[in-house]
Amino acid sequence: MNWALFAILISALAFIVAGYFYRWVSKLPVAEGPLRHVGMLIRKGAFAFLKREYRILAIFVGVVALLLVLFFPIPFWMGSILENLGMAAAYILGSVLSALAGVIGISIATIANVRAATAARQGLAPSYMAGFRGGAVMGMAVVGSSLFGAAVLYLLTSDPNIVLAFSFGASSLALFAKAGGGIFTKTADIAADLTGKVELGIPEDDPRNPAVIADNVGDNVGDVAGMGADLFDSNIAAIAAAMVIALPLGQVDLLFCFGALGLLASIIGVLTARVGKKGNPGAALNRGTYLTCGIFAVLTFVASMIYHFDLRLWGATVVGMVAGVVIGLTSDYFTGDNRKPVARVAHACESGPAFTILSGISYGLISALPSLAGIGAAALIAFKLCEPMGAGYAMLGVSMSAIGMLAIVGMIISNDAYGPIVDNARGVAEMGGLGEEVLKITDELDAAGNTSKAITKGFAIGAAGLTVIALLGAFREIVYNATGQTLVFDMMDPLIFFGMLIGAAIPAVFAAMLMMGVNRNSQKMVAEIHRQFNTIPGLKEGKQGVLPDYDRCIDIATVGAVRELIPAGLMAIVATLVVGFIGGVAAVGGFLAGNIVSGLLLAMLMSNAGGLWDNAKKYIEAGHCGGKGSPAHKAAVIGDTVGDPFKDTAGPSLNTQVTVVSLVSSLAAALFIAISIF
Amino acid sequence: MNWALFAILISALAFIVAGYFYRWVSKLPVAEGPLRHVGMLIRKGAFAFLKREYRILAIFVGVVALLLVLFFPIPFWMGSILENLGMAAAYILGSVLSALAGVIGISIATIANVRAATAARQGLAPSYMAGFRGGAVMGMAVVGSSLFGAAVLYLLTSDPNIVLAFSFGASSLALFAKAGGGIFTKTADIAADLTGKVELGIPEDDPRNPAVIADNVGDNVGDVAGMGADLFDSNIAAIAAAMVIALPLGQVDLLFCFGALGLLASIIGVLTARVGKKGNPGAALNRGTYLTCGIFAVLTFVASMIYHFDLRLWGATVVGMVAGVVIGLTSDYFTGDNRKPVARVAHACESGPAFTILSGISYGLISALPSLAGIGAAALIAFKLCEPMGAGYAMLGVSMSAIGMLAIVGMIISNDAYGPIVDNARGVAEMGGLGEEVLKITDELDAAGNTSKAITKGFAIGAAGLTVIALLGAFREIVYNATGQTLVFDMMDPLIFFGMLIGAAIPAVFAAMLMMGVNRNSQKMVAEIHRQFNTIPGLKEGKQGVLPDYDRCIDIATVGAVRELIPAGLMAIVATLVVGFIGGVAAVGGFLAGNIVSGLLLAMLMSNAGGLWDNAKKYIEAGHCGGKGSPAHKAAVIGDTVGDPFKDTAGPSLNTQVTVVSLVSSLAAALFIAISIF
Repeated sequence: MNWALFAILISALAFIVAGYFYRWVSKLPVAEGPLRHVGMLIRKGAFAFLKREYRILAIFVGVVALLLVLFFPIPFWMGSILENLGMAAAYILGSVLSALAGVIGISIATIANVRAATAARQGLAPSYMAGFRGGAVMGMAVVGSSLFGAAVLYLLTSDPNIVLAFSFGASSLALFAKAGGGIFTKTADIAADLTGKVELGIPEDDPRNPAVIADNVGDNVGDVAGMGADLFDSNIAAIAAAMVIALPLGQVDLLFCFGALGLLASIIGVLTARVGKKGNPGAALNRGTYLTCGIFAVLTFVASMIYHFDLRLWGATVVGMVAGVVIGLTSDYFTGDNRKPVARVAHACESGPAFTILSGISYGLISALPSLAGIGAAALIAFKLCEPMGAGYAMLGVSMSAIGMLAIVGMIISNDAYGPIVDNARGVAEMGGLGEEVLKITDELDAAGNTSKAITKGFAIGAAGLTVIALLGAFREIVYNATGQTLVFDMMDPLIFFGMLIGAAIPAVFAAMLMMGVNRNSQKMVAEIHRQFNTIPGLKEGKQGVLPDYDRCIDIATVGAVRELIPAGLMAIVATLVVGFIGGVAAVGGFLAGNIVSGLLLAMLMSNAGGLWDNAKKYIEAGHCGGKGSPAHKAAVIGDTVGDPFKDTAGPSLNTQVTVVSLVSSLAAALFIAISIF
Repeated sequence: MNWALFAILISALAFIVAGYFYRWVSKLPVAEGPLRHVGMLIRKGAFAFLKREYRILAIFVGVVALLLVLFFPIPFWMGSILENLGMAAAYILGSVLSALAGVIGISIATIANVRAATAARQGLAPSYMAGFRGGAVMGMAVVGSSLFGAAVLYLLTSDPNIVLAFSFGASSLALFAKAGGGIFTKTADIAADLTGKVELGIPEDDPRNPAVIADNVGDNVGDVAGMGADLFDSNIAAIAAAMVIALPLGQVDLLFCFGALGLLASIIGVLTARVGKKGNPGAALNRGTYLTCGIFAVLTFVASMIYHFDLRLWGATVVGMVAGVVIGLTSDYFTGDNRKPVARVAHACESGPAFTILSGISYGLISALPSLAGIGAAALIAFKLCEPMGAGYAMLGVSMSAIGMLAIVGMIISNDAYGPIVDNARGVAEMGGLGEEVLKITDELDAAGNTSKAITKGFAIGAAGLTVIALLGAFREIVYNATGQTLVFDMMDPLIFFGMLIGAAIPAVFAAMLMMGVNRNSQKMVAEIHRQFNTIPGLKEGKQGVLPDYDRCIDIATVGAVRELIPAGLMAIVATLVVGFIGGVAAVGGFLAGNIVSGLLLAMLMSNAGGLWDNAKKYIEAGHCGGKGSPAHKAAVIGDTVGDPFKDTAGPSLNTQVTVVSLVSSLAAALFIAISIF
């Protein structure tokens, strides 16, 4: 059985399902009236941003491709650049596929949003289906193309370096796409909230607010395109790391088999997802996830029995999957609106904003422990399980646990992309004037999306953690191939320690740079909104026919995001190179370890604290602790505003940052061996 | 030359200077009137807290001493417990000396505060001298007793384990004293600010506020006793780590020589400290620090030449000292009120509290990079400098760099204890009605104290970082002695990785537990203050002769702090033991590395963000961005309230947490080798 071919076939099946859903969603009706116009504005704004973002990124990709040709893995003065050319091509392919995933995601999301809103007139279930199947287009396209790309490259070259370069293409694009999208979406969200909800007391998504279209555009470019690029990248990185380790052991078959079965399980999960007429959309999303996990475990077990894969490796894979569920449950506990932390933070809001912030940060800090312990335990168990199989198998076990955690990523992305679609549906329903009943339904769908979003983030972060441990193994493998020496990352080596301390500081600086970008831009947008309110007569009062200049706000968010998306990511990449050229591969090993540890910690803190504040606000808005307009609510809005760049800009970009520096290290390993001060 | 004896002599000199300053300060006059009464209340409250805190801690110390007798380093069933008895005795000595340092500090601080306030009637210079010399009593007593204790134990036993136990006694007491004091002080500070400044708009330290005495008590128990215990502990830990490494190399002489010369330099620095009549107190504090550094570098160089110590070790020591200055300058940049970050955060306050929080956290995150890089670079340079001297010398170099960073700790503590004394002086001057002129002078002295406090914290954190790297070396040395095998902390070992991830999460949970403690208690105190304002007639209006019930507030802070001071520290210790019993010494090695990295990162973030918010508030109060009472000021007060437990409870406790788990690991190493699952 040629499992790489099998993976290509299953990918093709995923594309067919994606195409089917795309057509299914597109054929749904759209209500007449302002809804169409609003939907069109959002679609136009999203694509305009994407175009400008990709123009910048194309230059970046071109420069990096040139550097690859010249220096990686073999500097041009040291031999043939044939392999370098292959790597550059794979790099470009990775980034193009990642960009394509973004385009497909935005395209379907801006089709599905207005249709989900329209369908809400028929009830919750039809609206849910529009949102979920829209999200599933993204899920199927992303996972299908990552598996497809990896399998094709493997069949063509069998060179793990090529797959690493492919992965690096996907990651570097994801890094910038997430940073750019994250800055865009939170710039608009914060500015809209502060001027609309807080200052004027008008509802969310009120068409009078000049930032309202930008806010809805942001959901798409940040959450749909950004998260899609992120999970595309995680998935490929996991495959790449596993391939580097599996190749010398002759175990690549297993990798493609399990990867393909994971996608198959997701396809089944996505196709069977339903919600009852009066059903709970959150439960439906979770049911789908657990079902997919179960199918995956059974399918891979059966395949292992039939094709005689070692059950230890199957065990390692399942351990990773279980760890993913544990991390998801942790996020659910710390951010779910029916759990203690949300109620306690809401209660702290009654004592003012300072307590809101302190309690949210405290819970966020605590939430890191179970997640980090879960990742550590999964890696440990997978390692020990596979160690008896022989040299190299232990690390293969760890990399398979990452594959296991990401196996159901098709389902995860579907759940995740569902969130911004129904969020948008709520927005366009309000602006399109579809009435209270529709708003109630879309609100309910939206709340379910929030929790699933928090779970997805936990998953993405955990998967990045395991992947990067595997990448550290891949890094050592590469150094071994280059020097014939097994690198021992002894923490008592001061070079390792030096690298570790600097590596740990990088995610902090990275997160800070992104948050400062949001800060700067949203202050600009607030000023613009004030200007419009003050100079456009009748706007504030909601006079019939008076509309704000939405485009100016979209423009501010776009220009700001495009300017800010490069520096933070570049800083992380440059820091890796600087540490490598100072301290060589040992320092880079320490750098990666420090980077993972603090990156995961900060990512968990930021994602969970942000989700917690968001839901604490919703909890108060539902009538607790004084309800809407109370002092507690005002404090909760401040908490939510702090949480916005935490959870949607900095937090979820951190795992991509960690992945990118790991890949940079692996690719540049030969260079560091050739040139370093110590 | 017997350098241990020399160290004892210099310690004695330090005690003499401390005694001289104690008498000098005590003889200063105290103004008649309410000042005396207020001073008495503060003194009484502080000692009442100390008594209750120490009663709890005595039980803890007793239990640990018993455990030491039974299990450490050799379980009682495996041989003679004679060494165990010695260790328990050393442990008790360490904790008693630490407690004593706290008592001396509180005693002099509550004598000096009213005298500094009185002296302010004569001008800035006399008031400065009262504050500084009060602080110097603490500085001399702390450093003298730590050096004295270590030297005596060495002369008596020459057993590094005994010194480690001594250090563990000091550390575990410091951990709880800082946690307890930190919770006390911020409970009172936040409650007083929220009810007084924010709700009623009455000035800080207004005698109508029922929490005002508790707030001033807090400065003493938190900042004076807590920071004293902390630096006592850091100093001893550095000496202990260096001694474990120096003993087999026969280099203990060097250690005591340099330690004693550092204290001598501090004595000279403290004795010559002056401020001109119209001088700048901040500049005077800094001048003293730099002078001490210079004297230390020269003295140790001369001693190295005369007594033929290797200049490489001298170089390592000086590198550590320089790194300390770099960290201090970083803290100064990020928190100094004449620097960009403070102005920018103040500007962000104009856009509301959310931006205040986001910008402060962003700068705090960024501030971690230079500090961590400084620590890493110091360790790296010291290591490489001493590596050519032979096996073991490289780690000795690292431990000497920690000694170098802490060499001037006598001066540092003097500067630091100065802060709360003049802060208190300001408070008692307000309550004692000493007039505007005195308030202006004490305000100026207080502002200088804030910056020096931030620098001290940076120093303490950096020293802990270097010390813990050295302790990691000591840990390996101990494992080597027990098993004959050199432990390689290979990060690719999944046990190490498992330990590392959990170790990284512990400081986060620790910090969260302390902050939640402050949250809970200050909410209780706010309720009590509201009760008093509502039930005591004439209190709010400031009717002549109506006084609040100060004792109730002191009681709430005391009871709350005493209840919360144990759990967080115990959690960290238990986590270390659990990881050790699961994964053995390898997992503990990873645990320590993860713990240092994330502990330092969070400590820098919290200390610097907190100091930044504090000074941004002061910057606005000085008339910028709308000045007092403006919306920007309200936002700044919220930022400052968030920053309070950051910088005065959680942040500075983190370095003690890191030190404590390192010592626990070293002490329990033999146990982990005997018993562990993996």
